[in-house]
Amino acid sequence: MSDIQAPPGLAGVVVTDTVLGGVRGDEGFFHYREFSATELASRRTLEDIWYLFQTGELPDSSQSVEFAWRLAEHRGITDETLEIVVAAARLGSGRASLLWIRTAASILAESLGIETWLGRPIEDVADEAERLVAALPTAIAVGWRSQQGLDPIMPNPRLPLATDFLTMLSGVTPSVTAARAFEQYLILTIDHGLNASTFAARAVASTGADVGSSIVAGIGSLSGPLHGGAPSLVLDMLEDIGTIDRIRPWVRKRLASGEPVMGFGHRVYRTDDPRAVMLKGVALEIGGPLVDLAVASEAIIVEELDRHRPGRDLRANVEFYAGVVLHLVGIPTELFPACFAISRSIGWTAHILEQIADNRVIRPKATYVGPPPPVPVP
Amino acid sequence: MSDIQAPPGLAGVVVTDTVLGGVRGDEGFFHYREFSATELASRRTLEDIWYLFQTGELPDSSQSVEFAWRLAEHRGITDETLEIVVAAARLGSGRASLLWIRTAASILAESLGIETWLGRPIEDVADEAERLVAALPTAIAVGWRSQQGLDPIMPNPRLPLATDFLTMLSGVTPSVTAARAFEQYLILTIDHGLNASTFAARAVASTGADVGSSIVAGIGSLSGPLHGGAPSLVLDMLEDIGTIDRIRPWVRKRLASGEPVMGFGHRVYRTDDPRAVMLKGVALEIGGPLVDLAVASEAIIVEELDRHRPGRDLRANVEFYAGVVLHLVGIPTELFPACFAISRSIGWTAHILEQIADNRVIRPKATYVGPPPPVPVP
Repeated sequence: MSDIQAPPGLAGVVVTDTVLGGVRGDEGFFHYREFSATELASRRTLEDIWYLFQTGELPDSSQSVEFAWRLAEHRGITDETLEIVVAAARLGSGRASLLWIRTAASILAESLGIETWLGRPIEDVADEAERLVAALPTAIAVGWRSQQGLDPIMPNPRLPLATDFLTMLSGVTPSVTAARAFEQYLILTIDHGLNASTFAARAVASTGADVGSSIVAGIGSLSGPLHGGAPSLVLDMLEDIGTIDRIRPWVRKRLASGEPVMGFGHRVYRTDDPRAVMLKGVALEIGGPLVDLAVASEAIIVEELDRHRPGRDLRANVEFYAGVVLHLVGIPTELFPACFAISRSIGWTAHILEQIADNRVIRPKATYVGPPPPVPVP
Repeated sequence: MSDIQAPPGLAGVVVTDTVLGGVRGDEGFFHYREFSATELASRRTLEDIWYLFQTGELPDSSQSVEFAWRLAEHRGITDETLEIVVAAARLGSGRASLLWIRTAASILAESLGIETWLGRPIEDVADEAERLVAALPTAIAVGWRSQQGLDPIMPNPRLPLATDFLTMLSGVTPSVTAARAFEQYLILTIDHGLNASTFAARAVASTGADVGSSIVAGIGSLSGPLHGGAPSLVLDMLEDIGTIDRIRPWVRKRLASGEPVMGFGHRVYRTDDPRAVMLKGVALEIGGPLVDLAVASEAIIVEELDRHRPGRDLRANVEFYAGVVLHLVGIPTELFPACFAISRSIGWTAHILEQIADNRVIRPKATYVGPPPPVPVP
């Protein structure tokens, strides 16, 4: 078989089939399994969607309760493990949060005794991944609190994950509106085609590595600004703009200087990003001056971008309103990428399990283009 | 542009150009930059080859001394960091070593304050990676000793890396022969085309992630038995065979039962694996009953494999003699994969730097093949 020369970044290269979901960029539509993702986000709980990714079906009400309870129980972390997580969090204090969260996830994987998936029943592997992903929010909350000099707050298995995470962070039970807004953010960011972190997680899994290593690789892939790093920059931008009357001059100056405006345009969507549309609605339900500023900024930025680069039709993407929603529900800016890791790790898990169910080591080729070997060694 | 349907595992898909090296499977030849890798291994030090990967040139003698000294200085780890590494090692005690070493590498990356490479001079990124990779052997040695209840042994910057690692493990300065044998193992396993771990490291780097995350992903990729896990199984096999007279019946029984014989055959080499040939020579220089058993086993296994699967021409691969050499120089079996991580992380670094010098996010596609969406959400 002769080699295939792939475009840079494997753009347009189909590497696998999937039953987990898809993105229709021209229609502004994405789906989890066979369901509209935004419809799922408006009607069901995070735990239900997690169940859907794991089993292929939406749970009935007793399955829903049972599964949510099981996940809640897996949120617990032993004292010994927490101590190491806290040490890792302190070591990484003042740096991008995903860097210490990467360590925390690796510690969790160790503490759960996660091993290679090779030669083991897929249910056991799924169980390992579920435990790791369920415990990750606890590790994040405890680690972050230790960085602030605050005592840990242990998970409360009676609460849904989204509510419990906000509680573990702040010590205060969030309003129903805030908890649901955060939950909808999480649901909308579980999966989105074969994105970079998901592909990296699948590549690691393909070697027979344990699911812990795959999820750690996924987290590492989110640590870079090119994939998921924009929501906090959007918030910085809105803060910098400050008031509605300053939006247009700010944007014009920004565009004139050639600097990017964060949170606009998408590689796949040629129309509205359905996640942005829904998160805008979520933000408007909460309301307040930041939301007013964001909505006004969106409209003006779209206009100015169109004037600046006519025909590109750039629109707000998920990251624009994600930053707003996460701020409104009380997430500290440095934990925005951590929230993305919490939801996306559910998607990674499903992809990892799909990968290993019909595995082939992902091992492409490179073409050597240096001076011709062998040159004698001096 | 229309999509390209890639074969499973991206087999035969060329994803990048490289100047770092190549493998000529039909000729039984591989090279680092423009030099024969086996020639490099027979003539130069590990530190010189590290310099070659990093700079593109072999060092002259003053550059060689200077670079080796710099690397040796980077082997030091602060007490605070070591304490967390030790805790992570203890947590992972009794499991595959790379699982806690993955955590250790993540901790080292944190302690070095490694950040996204985006928007930063490539020299700074190279420096970060160099420090991490240089300190990894220290973390491995200290972590392993703590698992055995032994006090840490700090690095000695007057020693070459290979010698120092063996010393940090055992507390005893190795013989010149053992140190050189280990060094040659390390040199021969730095790089080998775009293997699975290297590709995973490049994929993570492509997102703008810090080099720490990329190297952690590489380590995770080695944790699975499908990539680099065989040397310890080879040693188990030789132990199980026991004596030369038992080889043939053992192999025949094994093949008859359909179980694999570890350390034979290679995806790329259609003739001798040059690494196996060289490591066999290295093993023979050390000599002893295990080497006699291994050499006799190799010959008989090749014969029996040929009888069992005529025409396949399966030969010993790098993992067959790697296990023997690592055992001879005193590496505990559970650290065999760790040694692979020590050398391969030099290769990963070079690939990561090559990736980011001309980056494009690695983001392929998947085809949705589930039931047609959207089905209404119940």
